Amino acid sequence: MGLHNLVLVEPRKFPHEQASKRAAGAEDVLLGARVVESLDEALLNTTLVLGTSVREREVNWPIYTPRDAAQIAVKHSANNSANRVAILFGREHSGLTNDELDRCSAQISIPADQEYSSLNLASAVQIIAYELRLANLAYADALVEVQGTAEIQGKSINSRQQAATHHQRVGHLDHLSHVLKDLNFAHNQNSPLLMRKLTRLYNKAELTVEEVQILRGILTAIQSRSTRS
Amino acid sequence: MGLHNLVLVEPRKFPHEQASKRAAGAEDVLLGARVVESLDEALLNTTLVLGTSVREREVNWPIYTPRDAAQIAVKHSANNSANRVAILFGREHSGLTNDELDRCSAQISIPADQEYSSLNLASAVQIIAYELRLANLAYADALVEVQGTAEIQGKSINSRQQAATHHQRVGHLDHLSHVLKDLNFAHNQNSPLLMRKLTRLYNKAELTVEEVQILRGILTAIQSRSTRS
Repeated sequence: MGLHNLVLVEPRKFPHEQASKRAAGAEDVLLGARVVESLDEALLNTTLVLGTSVREREVNWPIYTPRDAAQIAVKHSANNSANRVAILFGREHSGLTNDELDRCSAQISIPADQEYSSLNLASAVQIIAYELRLANLAYADALVEVQGTAEIQGKSINSRQQAATHHQRVGHLDHLSHVLKDLNFAHNQNSPLLMRKLTRLYNKAELTVEEVQILRGILTAIQSRSTRS
Repeated sequence: MGLHNLVLVEPRKFPHEQASKRAAGAEDVLLGARVVESLDEALLNTTLVLGTSVREREVNWPIYTPRDAAQIAVKHSANNSANRVAILFGREHSGLTNDELDRCSAQISIPADQEYSSLNLASAVQIIAYELRLANLAYADALVEVQGTAEIQGKSINSRQQAATHHQRVGHLDHLSHVLKDLNFAHNQNSPLLMRKLTRLYNKAELTVEEVQILRGILTAIQSRSTRS
């Protein structure tokens, strides 16, 4: 999710082969982890600390959703290059103690189903990391817009994969209509209503140029079979 | 995250004590899981299938962010009580095959860091489940607001306007494949690739029951013409 700085406070077992296995290609983050002996040491140079919790504690500091918290974190980082945001996660089973939550400016509460008591630590980390990634991407996009780089990086889509033009779509529907008449299919039905339904159907599909070519190829094959007969 | 219906296709080991341990209090979901032998069996009664992928494949059907996909899924469910949405996840290391993605109307792409090739399956599931929970909560909130002013008129959708099931959609594609063979159309082309493209095209359209009936009616008309000739 684009995060790199992992700090582990008094890990029970580290390094650990299970951790390496589950890193799923991001072992560099694990290898680069800083191991410290106390939470205060971990937070030493941070300028904003957000603590995570599934349950909302009776606290009198702000509680944010993951989405709002991510935006706050990204904005804080962007405000000043010296700013450092920490997202603080607790233990697998018991989470953060109140004493630990006291070190946070705000709490992030993940809106889990209330019938289930807790979320795996990995799941909580994933959700927050995902929201931070989205907030970072949105921030980067906004930055590009502000910088006025009006140049759109042309997504060089193959021309056959481009959306078919209105002209091409109408051409296909006319072709289809002719074939249906040849087959006497439209004859037995309410023809304008049928064509309206088929028009909707193919419009829903948002056909590409190639798809129109394929469909018209099939129609031509049906016609040539009919002519031969 | 409020989801309950888990379907496992050919799980290597199930039940498994590791899975129970990691269920973190949600063992009821695990115990209630349905185990099936094929993907088609799993999808039988579904009306919308969304497949997940970290990498964007070169496909020409819609690719949604987890956020957009969650809204589409919640809306689809809300439209008709008979609608069933499936979110399809692949294997831990290799994900979904193209053949499996062909069963989907759209692809959900998780915006992971491009330098890292993949996400753990559990992480992918967590992100999608989280977005579905947010979309569900937002929908429930909106519903309460609307009901506060006026009672919602039960959308009594005609059964023919309901989304076609996976079974019905597969039936149409099989029928189409037969007709193309009869026409020698597939013969001249790269047939499996052609059918894949047609599968995607019709999945994009999210066909209704009636639309499948119309399309199969046309196919039958083509066949009876061919037989007569």
